[in-house]
Amino acid sequence: MTRIPVIANVLEYNTAVAADVRRIVGPRVLTLNLISSPGAGKTTLIERTAAALKGELRLAVIEGDLATTLDAGRVAAQGVPVVQINTNGGCHLEARQIMAALPQLPLGEVDVLIIENVGNLVCPVEFDLGEDARVVVTSLTEGDDKPLKYPASFMSAQAVVVNKLDLAPYLPVSLDKLCQSITAINSRAKIMPLSCITGEGLEAWLDWIRAALRAKRERSSLS
Amino acid sequence: MTRIPVIANVLEYNTAVAADVRRIVGPRVLTLNLISSPGAGKTTLIERTAAALKGELRLAVIEGDLATTLDAGRVAAQGVPVVQINTNGGCHLEARQIMAALPQLPLGEVDVLIIENVGNLVCPVEFDLGEDARVVVTSLTEGDDKPLKYPASFMSAQAVVVNKLDLAPYLPVSLDKLCQSITAINSRAKIMPLSCITGEGLEAWLDWIRAALRAKRERSSLS
Repeated sequence: MTRIPVIANVLEYNTAVAADVRRIVGPRVLTLNLISSPGAGKTTLIERTAAALKGELRLAVIEGDLATTLDAGRVAAQGVPVVQINTNGGCHLEARQIMAALPQLPLGEVDVLIIENVGNLVCPVEFDLGEDARVVVTSLTEGDDKPLKYPASFMSAQAVVVNKLDLAPYLPVSLDKLCQSITAINSRAKIMPLSCITGEGLEAWLDWIRAALRAKRERSSLS
Repeated sequence: MTRIPVIANVLEYNTAVAADVRRIVGPRVLTLNLISSPGAGKTTLIERTAAALKGELRLAVIEGDLATTLDAGRVAAQGVPVVQINTNGGCHLEARQIMAALPQLPLGEVDVLIIENVGNLVCPVEFDLGEDARVVVTSLTEGDDKPLKYPASFMSAQAVVVNKLDLAPYLPVSLDKLCQSITAINSRAKIMPLSCITGEGLEAWLDWIRAALRAKRERSSLS
């Protein structure tokens, strides 16, 4: 009987490459995978984070977009090493794209690697990029029902940033209800409401990054 | 030599089914495919449209969501016939799902059929649902760079609704720049800035629907 070659599951291949990414990035660098709808504020959050951590932690960024280098330009303006991945219409990043980006970053001089996924609350969920933690960024303007309507992304997150807190007075949206929806979907996710415009709540997010980096380095020194 | 069956391109199959949807819906019903990011305001726009056109045009709605019947519940509360399609994690609607929904709607008593796609500015683009026109809904809160960053969806639209105009005073976003970006990507798209909260600009959107319905019925009576 002829043996028919079976191409392994795309997700299995991705997961294997993600493990390679983890190995190459190593135990000293915290890697975050930022997932959100278009326009929730991922790039602005990265800009604010880079500015706030300057002189304390060294950032590097991988930007995923369908087209343009607009976001990479904004990040580079913060003096942060950045690689832009253009997916040419692709709706999510995959681990092999991260693998191709890594040699273009000075990993030996990086504490935190932030991957900004394509703006899409659905498709990136299934693709491990080799991150240590996944962060969903939602904004108050998107409404308080999104965790229930897009459960998989919220379910897969270690942390949820609720951005655009400054717009709360002008929105028919309840922050309490949004936080309850997130907890109903994922009771372990750390929820951090903040405003990238006013800076309110930003310190809790920076503390979360600091603690996650410390925990990763402690784990690796114990093992 | 053994003939190996080749499964036709998924998109070709979808396009063929979309043509069937068009035939079944017929020449008297205007079908709109609403595409946007999560939380741009598609459902609220449908609620406002249904309320404003009550007694003038008869609406029906097909709701696409990963999970829940939250949106269908909101539309049904307007007295509008509605079918909910749950994609179980699927990132876009396909024509075969519309085909399955049609028998559950009173098509003989409908003037405008609105299909609310899954909240996703990327994946729905390639899938013709048998619509007469595609409407991208973007909101001012998403920023003025989205047409450049997600060009395919804006390129494929006959009309772009710019929602959440009421938040303009509180946002670091330029409506002019957003409109220029839309026009740069798609110079033929009709751009309609509006607020579903205050009602500002809603009349232009209703007029666009009225004109599109009239044009479709005139085309069909001529042919």
